[in-house]
Amino acid sequence: MFDPYKLQLDDLKDRDPKYLETIFSIGNGHFGSRATDPLKPTHDGGTVINGFYESSPIIYGEQAYGYAKNHQTIINLPDLRSIQIAEGDGQFFATEQLISQTLNLKTGIMTTESTLTSPSGHRIRLALQAILGQHRQQAAAFRYTLTALNFSGPVRMAKQLWLDAADTQSDDPRLARSVQTLNFTHSANESGQQVVVTTDRSQLQAGIKIDAPAKWELTLDESISNSFDVLAAVGPIVDAAVAYPELALPESFDILAEDAQTYWNKTWANGNVEITGDDALAQGIHYNLFQLNSSAGRDGLTNIAAKGVSGTGYEGHYFWDTEMYMLPYFTLTNPTIARSLLAYRYHVLPAAKKRARELGVDHGALFAWRTINGEEASAYYPAGTAQYHINGDIAYAIGQYFAATGDFAFMRDMGFEILLETAKFWANFGSWFTVHGESHFGFFDVTRPDEYTAIVDNNFYTNKIAQHNLQLVVAVARAFEKAGQAIPLGVTESDLTELARIAKGIYLPVDDALKIHPQDDSFLKKPRWPFATTPKDKYPLLLHFHPLTIYRYQVNKQADTLLADYLFPDSISDSQTQRDYAYYEPVTTHDSSLSRAIFSAVAARLGMAGKAYAYFTDTARMDLVDLQGNAADGLHLANLGGSWLSIITGFAGVKYTGAQLSVTNHLPEQWESLAFIINYQGRVLKFTLTHGTTIASLEFGEPIDVVIDGHQRVIS
Amino acid sequence: MFDPYKLQLDDLKDRDPKYLETIFSIGNGHFGSRATDPLKPTHDGGTVINGFYESSPIIYGEQAYGYAKNHQTIINLPDLRSIQIAEGDGQFFATEQLISQTLNLKTGIMTTESTLTSPSGHRIRLALQAILGQHRQQAAAFRYTLTALNFSGPVRMAKQLWLDAADTQSDDPRLARSVQTLNFTHSANESGQQVVVTTDRSQLQAGIKIDAPAKWELTLDESISNSFDVLAAVGPIVDAAVAYPELALPESFDILAEDAQTYWNKTWANGNVEITGDDALAQGIHYNLFQLNSSAGRDGLTNIAAKGVSGTGYEGHYFWDTEMYMLPYFTLTNPTIARSLLAYRYHVLPAAKKRARELGVDHGALFAWRTINGEEASAYYPAGTAQYHINGDIAYAIGQYFAATGDFAFMRDMGFEILLETAKFWANFGSWFTVHGESHFGFFDVTRPDEYTAIVDNNFYTNKIAQHNLQLVVAVARAFEKAGQAIPLGVTESDLTELARIAKGIYLPVDDALKIHPQDDSFLKKPRWPFATTPKDKYPLLLHFHPLTIYRYQVNKQADTLLADYLFPDSISDSQTQRDYAYYEPVTTHDSSLSRAIFSAVAARLGMAGKAYAYFTDTARMDLVDLQGNAADGLHLANLGGSWLSIITGFAGVKYTGAQLSVTNHLPEQWESLAFIINYQGRVLKFTLTHGTTIASLEFGEPIDVVIDGHQRVIS
Repeated sequence: MFDPYKLQLDDLKDRDPKYLETIFSIGNGHFGSRATDPLKPTHDGGTVINGFYESSPIIYGEQAYGYAKNHQTIINLPDLRSIQIAEGDGQFFATEQLISQTLNLKTGIMTTESTLTSPSGHRIRLALQAILGQHRQQAAAFRYTLTALNFSGPVRMAKQLWLDAADTQSDDPRLARSVQTLNFTHSANESGQQVVVTTDRSQLQAGIKIDAPAKWELTLDESISNSFDVLAAVGPIVDAAVAYPELALPESFDILAEDAQTYWNKTWANGNVEITGDDALAQGIHYNLFQLNSSAGRDGLTNIAAKGVSGTGYEGHYFWDTEMYMLPYFTLTNPTIARSLLAYRYHVLPAAKKRARELGVDHGALFAWRTINGEEASAYYPAGTAQYHINGDIAYAIGQYFAATGDFAFMRDMGFEILLETAKFWANFGSWFTVHGESHFGFFDVTRPDEYTAIVDNNFYTNKIAQHNLQLVVAVARAFEKAGQAIPLGVTESDLTELARIAKGIYLPVDDALKIHPQDDSFLKKPRWPFATTPKDKYPLLLHFHPLTIYRYQVNKQADTLLADYLFPDSISDSQTQRDYAYYEPVTTHDSSLSRAIFSAVAARLGMAGKAYAYFTDTARMDLVDLQGNAADGLHLANLGGSWLSIITGFAGVKYTGAQLSVTNHLPEQWESLAFIINYQGRVLKFTLTHGTTIASLEFGEPIDVVIDGHQRVIS
Repeated sequence: MFDPYKLQLDDLKDRDPKYLETIFSIGNGHFGSRATDPLKPTHDGGTVINGFYESSPIIYGEQAYGYAKNHQTIINLPDLRSIQIAEGDGQFFATEQLISQTLNLKTGIMTTESTLTSPSGHRIRLALQAILGQHRQQAAAFRYTLTALNFSGPVRMAKQLWLDAADTQSDDPRLARSVQTLNFTHSANESGQQVVVTTDRSQLQAGIKIDAPAKWELTLDESISNSFDVLAAVGPIVDAAVAYPELALPESFDILAEDAQTYWNKTWANGNVEITGDDALAQGIHYNLFQLNSSAGRDGLTNIAAKGVSGTGYEGHYFWDTEMYMLPYFTLTNPTIARSLLAYRYHVLPAAKKRARELGVDHGALFAWRTINGEEASAYYPAGTAQYHINGDIAYAIGQYFAATGDFAFMRDMGFEILLETAKFWANFGSWFTVHGESHFGFFDVTRPDEYTAIVDNNFYTNKIAQHNLQLVVAVARAFEKAGQAIPLGVTESDLTELARIAKGIYLPVDDALKIHPQDDSFLKKPRWPFATTPKDKYPLLLHFHPLTIYRYQVNKQADTLLADYLFPDSISDSQTQRDYAYYEPVTTHDSSLSRAIFSAVAARLGMAGKAYAYFTDTARMDLVDLQGNAADGLHLANLGGSWLSIITGFAGVKYTGAQLSVTNHLPEQWESLAFIINYQGRVLKFTLTHGTTIASLEFGEPIDVVIDGHQRVIS
């Protein structure tokens, strides 16, 4: 029987090794281990530590003031799975065939079974089970089971914490630069080995320890299985100037498996999604949530990279993807992790304040578009720094977190300062101007989420999210007052009045003729992209056309105005959203993996069941079918979160933008039922949607008022 | 008595050696020689050949489709002036003091006088006269006169065609790259030396030959002058695959001086400008015209680099500066050179056609924003490739050349094809859109001449110059018909109708409230730059603010809308220009050297004598006072031409945009008179402006109708 909590090799069409390495990778927020062939040395390691990066100067063909100065590149570390097996005469075994690969989404154990063969024709069956600690995040364990298939005798084992030397020969200049500035310090003895990697430029160090010696012997008896475990520790990132701390290995494989089991049990209990009626989609959403959990930093100093810890694409950088696509899942299922992710932004707030000054804005903070350490690392500012909307995105996520948790402590310690600094940025960055005799406040020369136009004026999304950012400071200040607490940071009534005045002035026009929100001041005047004469192999457009070519047409790669409509259902009517959808959908290519989830959710809410389902199908198994064609570089983390958004905020119509949680049943006709669990205001709530009925139950906590399908209900 | 045809050291305040090297540099369009200290080896040579460049890959922090692929960097070649003088014991003389430096603008001879001293205290007076051939453009000669001041005895002379090794150690990554890919092939014998420089990547070669051996001896008698000449040839640029041709040295210094004398006599006779009443400005304009002539390529394969042949700033690239700022001088004084400069654009037309395809435009040609070989070399497309207006600028210059010369042969062979290809580009690049119910044709995502905003919509200048480009095809086609000749290239009546229809549709709005031409669709909505709170040391803004900061304000670095007003006096009224001037002047910083000349000319035409004069004063001696602060990198060639434009098209109000030449006397009150010579329709005409009178005389050719101060006159 098909188990939607398991991913097997046969569930996939693609057999490209790099692709499989990504798909079967495992992680625990701190580090990740790609599903490499353990017998094959790789140039790119397969192990990455979230946030462990090296800097290198960005070289510009033409330099200018205020440009991002340094690349930040996540570092490839030695593969933990790697092992060498040789005959007594020194001839190496190599992988003959990959038999099975299984990722158990309930236990976190990843198992690879393969046959090995030596030049002399000896064959071995190898089963490798890998598990990473989920509470003990520095721990990993690997169980190797060898069965000689056609011989008996000694084999020589070797295990090394080295990267293949070819690494430094890479054609990628960024990789070459960072690898050349790493220092590896190895130590080994009878009981194990350790490597500490120090970076020259970013001045960080991180270490890996295993309990296996460099070499040992084993005697195999034909058809008898022989197992051994390798225990590993992947240590913290510390300043290069301090002595690297002693790393603690886990006690055993089994104890670590228990640790993981506890985590996954709790994770599913607090945030499961059950689809009845479509096993493949059920598997897809489970896989997505598994990998989302595997990638999210939990220490307040790290975040979720665009590829998580499953690969080095996008250099391990954190983007707005976290707040807009991934954080909502954690906010409603694991507020502790959500809080840690937001704490990361507080951690880098000083860098954001500095960046605002570099952009000529005297007050407030501007978060980096892509970064690890908080400094801007985007080497192309028109689709980087110019995406000021990230400020509003982070503020929005804080607002949602606060709405879902009522976490005043976080808000007082960190959240309010971020809200205030981002709001101050908008107030000082924007300007007043007059349209048809009316005074408005807006933002010039900004790049919108949809990067198929850059440096535009009054992008609807940016204006809307900035308005919300400004309003949020006022709303949260009032919440403090209502709770009998002082407004933090000495914010005065007149400060709030000024922010409210600007928020009210924000320019959010509706086009007279089309009655839609113009995406920006010029979009509607441009000609439509010549879709009819664009061959399929010219997509994604950004790989086949000069930015200037793309920019001068009406064409989007992802939801933009529609994302604003999606985020603000309380202030943007369904009929308005409907018109925007009808206008923008035909000019959207979905070249971005961030697009379909939002189109699905909005379509579901608007009752366009067919579209909602079609977009969701692409979303739910995006990486499992390699829809974007580049999963080999790493998973599309934002889409993993996006697929959850499609279900929860689309098909289940969950909203918590207002004072109350509401759920609206838009169950697709293709499904029998949909059940899901969320956390809200300290409660654990379970909803089960069938055709015509929505049942809510309280799994934990006090009774609570919820709006279900438009009706007030008390869940108790 | 002050000679306004001589530049002396005492005319300058700045004594920075690099600055003086630029100011006293000499050139002949083919190559240039900076006024280096002959006793001091330099890393950067001092000799450049116009158009002799090496390629190197442009590295982008973030790469995208269609970006310019290669830098093109003009090559520093060994210094021709360089000499080493040593005592019998091998101790070297070094320059003790620079006594005088004189650039004779009537003969082209540059003389340096200095004293040299050795460690033993022996002193020599050295006079070095340098002359470059002007008709024999590959020839140069240097006369060294040595006078021992306090000793008699032998000295050892050495002369080498080497570059100092430190060249490859430069901090400038572009320079380092190109120097590392050069190959120097030296040969030497008793009668002379030769070096041939071959480039690895651009696959070009160029050579230098001198008639001096590597070493020789000389005996000096105290107080007796001892002279010798070094004759040099700086050869053509040829393909690296062919054998380098034998270089011919000039017969003698004196014969070469005669060659130059002939050229300068003719140049002044055909295009002199005489200002009576201000010697410094008179000297300034003579200097500017001298250097402009020294820099202009004359072979149809080269153009005028932004720094001419006086330095390597801007990598020796050609920009729109040629057509809009420098070519008008040649068009009206030396049509042969003007034609050669336009022939260069025809020479690179195939590259421009290719570039249009790369920008997603199926028909027509797009000239590179900065280039030597015709391929785009701008590494920052928002202020590079996006400046599509260069197409219109080149077309405008062709139109002006045709108006001034009636050169049908050029138009049939080259000009018309450029006009047609650029017009076709506009027609296919632009699009129709509706404003207030009216259909207009315009251009989205373009960068205007003033680069303090990039990627805007419907820049007035761009739209206007594009309209003119389209109209010009029709006008020139009609001129062919009128002359009884077929329209070239098979252009049909319906082609012309379509171009005229688009031209008519071009969007050129006037703001309802301000009655000015909006610079682009968004400029007038933006806030003004906070000039009051910007300290002086923060200019030029582009060196102290992020592009995004500058872009979001109303601030210009140079004439933009006003440049359009200036170029099209027949279709833009004086009152309109007056309003535009009043609006845009206060937001213009003149951070660009291309700005003041146009403000001066427009102010003169509008009768704002004070402003016209003030701007002109800055323009006329810009490099002689180092107004921009970076003349050490090379002369501001566009401004050299701009100062001529200020006088001729401003103070003398010369226009030839219509069917007739017209002159309007706006003589500044500070001057007694202004006299100048121009070529027009095969005539050489001299105009003398005094207060209240304008006298025209025919120096050569048939009588011609000219409009003088609004009245029709026949000059005979």
